[in-house]
Amino acid sequence: MAEHSLIFSAGEYRARLRRLQSSMISAELDVLMLTQPADVFYVTGFLTRFWESPARPWFVLVPLAGDPVAVIPAIGADLMARTWMQDIRTWPAPDPRDDGMSLLRETLEELLPVVGRVGLPMGLETQLRMPLGDFDQLRRSLATHKFIDATEVVQRVREIKSEAEIAKIKSICAIAGRAFDRVPDLAGVGVPLDQVFRQFQAALLSEGADWVSYTAGGAGQGGYGDVISPAGQVPLADGDLLMLDTGAVRDGYFCDFDRNFAIGPASDALRQGHDVLFAATEDALTGLRPGMRAHEAHAILATGITKRGGAPLAGRLGHGLGVTLTEWPSFTPLDQTVLRAGMVLTLEPGLELAPGRIMVHEENIVLRAEGCELLSPRAPQTLPEIS
Amino acid sequence: MAEHSLIFSAGEYRARLRRLQSSMISAELDVLMLTQPADVFYVTGFLTRFWESPARPWFVLVPLAGDPVAVIPAIGADLMARTWMQDIRTWPAPDPRDDGMSLLRETLEELLPVVGRVGLPMGLETQLRMPLGDFDQLRRSLATHKFIDATEVVQRVREIKSEAEIAKIKSICAIAGRAFDRVPDLAGVGVPLDQVFRQFQAALLSEGADWVSYTAGGAGQGGYGDVISPAGQVPLADGDLLMLDTGAVRDGYFCDFDRNFAIGPASDALRQGHDVLFAATEDALTGLRPGMRAHEAHAILATGITKRGGAPLAGRLGHGLGVTLTEWPSFTPLDQTVLRAGMVLTLEPGLELAPGRIMVHEENIVLRAEGCELLSPRAPQTLPEIS
Repeated sequence: MAEHSLIFSAGEYRARLRRLQSSMISAELDVLMLTQPADVFYVTGFLTRFWESPARPWFVLVPLAGDPVAVIPAIGADLMARTWMQDIRTWPAPDPRDDGMSLLRETLEELLPVVGRVGLPMGLETQLRMPLGDFDQLRRSLATHKFIDATEVVQRVREIKSEAEIAKIKSICAIAGRAFDRVPDLAGVGVPLDQVFRQFQAALLSEGADWVSYTAGGAGQGGYGDVISPAGQVPLADGDLLMLDTGAVRDGYFCDFDRNFAIGPASDALRQGHDVLFAATEDALTGLRPGMRAHEAHAILATGITKRGGAPLAGRLGHGLGVTLTEWPSFTPLDQTVLRAGMVLTLEPGLELAPGRIMVHEENIVLRAEGCELLSPRAPQTLPEIS
Repeated sequence: MAEHSLIFSAGEYRARLRRLQSSMISAELDVLMLTQPADVFYVTGFLTRFWESPARPWFVLVPLAGDPVAVIPAIGADLMARTWMQDIRTWPAPDPRDDGMSLLRETLEELLPVVGRVGLPMGLETQLRMPLGDFDQLRRSLATHKFIDATEVVQRVREIKSEAEIAKIKSICAIAGRAFDRVPDLAGVGVPLDQVFRQFQAALLSEGADWVSYTAGGAGQGGYGDVISPAGQVPLADGDLLMLDTGAVRDGYFCDFDRNFAIGPASDALRQGHDVLFAATEDALTGLRPGMRAHEAHAILATGITKRGGAPLAGRLGHGLGVTLTEWPSFTPLDQTVLRAGMVLTLEPGLELAPGRIMVHEENIVLRAEGCELLSPRAPQTLPEIS
């Protein structure tokens, strides 16, 4: 019970704090206010699945100098005290009269100068995890202070993973790789897709995942319809293309990659589709370099598909990965984010096999100075068949 | 692939729509704007674990008359088209220039009168699941319209479960009950807690859970420290009190209850603690009636503990349950919510066994006109021992 819950050494969190605070200097912020599970976990190491409960808001305040302050519901005091955090302030939540707002305002006022700037992530990929009504009132009541968008401040820091973080992601990728290896034992003609999903999740757990936050996939004759559906009860049939995609978690870090399987002998179309996606992924694995922009990664993957006669999907063809299932940037023609060494990314080329029938391939990498290093075990070059 | 993904009949969703619209009339709302996974699922039946990705916002707009409109990223079009929804508008997300905001604004303007009132949940237990910066701009750009807190509108409707919903919750409660029955086979002296957690999740899946969104618990000599921690690696020892708590999911509906186990022979203190919590729960099971308020439920449970010599925990002693792990109301001394027939609730009395050592008991019920109907299989009256 008194067991520490650090995940990483206190030094890792101190290094994160220093990077955030130096980023805050450039943005001229006095305090950074964090409300999202991933940001709270990143700064404190506070790891719980209790975020599933929408009942209570949680806050971490990062001052320009000194240690962060946790302003949290009392139910989290015991667990937060087992992290590296020292300054933990609690209120008896949920309180319908004042659910942490007085305590949060007092703490902000203590940390802010007379005219202060509070950074709060407000941009793409961010959400405010607290009641909007309470926030509106807080913003009005702190009228001498200004709330500033701090999306960049957080993203430019979080997107560069430490070696300790990369090791965590590599570890959950290996776990998922072993679970994918077991899919031929779980799936086959006549097995309902929802049974495959359940057994695949159990395989992930038995291989070492702490929990399985995401499984999706699809199965259909000559391709599937989308990549975000839960499983239906239709049994797998000869000629189906089966895809399983998972965001399993170990020590709070995600993998996010998928695998495709032909049920029965693969048709030429399925085999060729898989070959194209494998080769386009190779193009990115050999071609990506720090300094390129996210849209150039998209171009490599999309061109890799078209030049081999495929029709790339319209959505993004890869993204960041780490403390959440997906992180910025997005490999789209529009994303100008500069790719930097230390970013953990997914390469996710997808193509249309026929109208409404798609195939998507996915690998996880860390970008090094010299190029990509695979974190997921590479998919087989040829589409595997499950007889 | 063309499989429908309704979960319920279209009639169930039509009934929900009618109730929401009638609630909107009382609140004088022209459009209800929903951004949270649970609200989107409630109105549409759109069920996915893709919410794990924070990359894109999703919107469902409920007009005062007529069918709801989905304004969603293109990646969701296939799955949304398999629900009962007809009016589905998509944009190619993520788009850093305009991530759905033009489409959302156009759709709102189409649905609103010249001077309109947009309802948006802004109160306790709600969050705005979209970038705050985009929302601020939207609110400014729709200056002739007013954004109104619609927390009550949504909560008074969602909190009354249909028989079809109650059946779903009962089904996942039965699944979890069977998994709890297997805990004596998974746990025992020398087994690390994280292994117990993994095997318990696998048991939930093999008993029929679609996925396991929440597991927490604790183990410690003479009690545990909190109820929201993930598992550590410390092996179970003789004299430990082990608690497992789960929010497993089937068809989008949660259970949320726990079970306690003594590792080795139970001490008198543990056995008495369990007896007190069991009896306090009986008090609520026999005493709760529609028309009471949430704070009266708290009083029944707290008094049930104190009158038997126990020290009740300071936090809430129960809450709503359904489409999320926890829903309003909260059984605290402050919550004035009226309990009504059709509410699904948890009874969650907890007590302090010694400083920093607690025990928490939990059952799930539906409140009927005549009182409580258990949805979870009742915990054993005497604390079970795992030898």
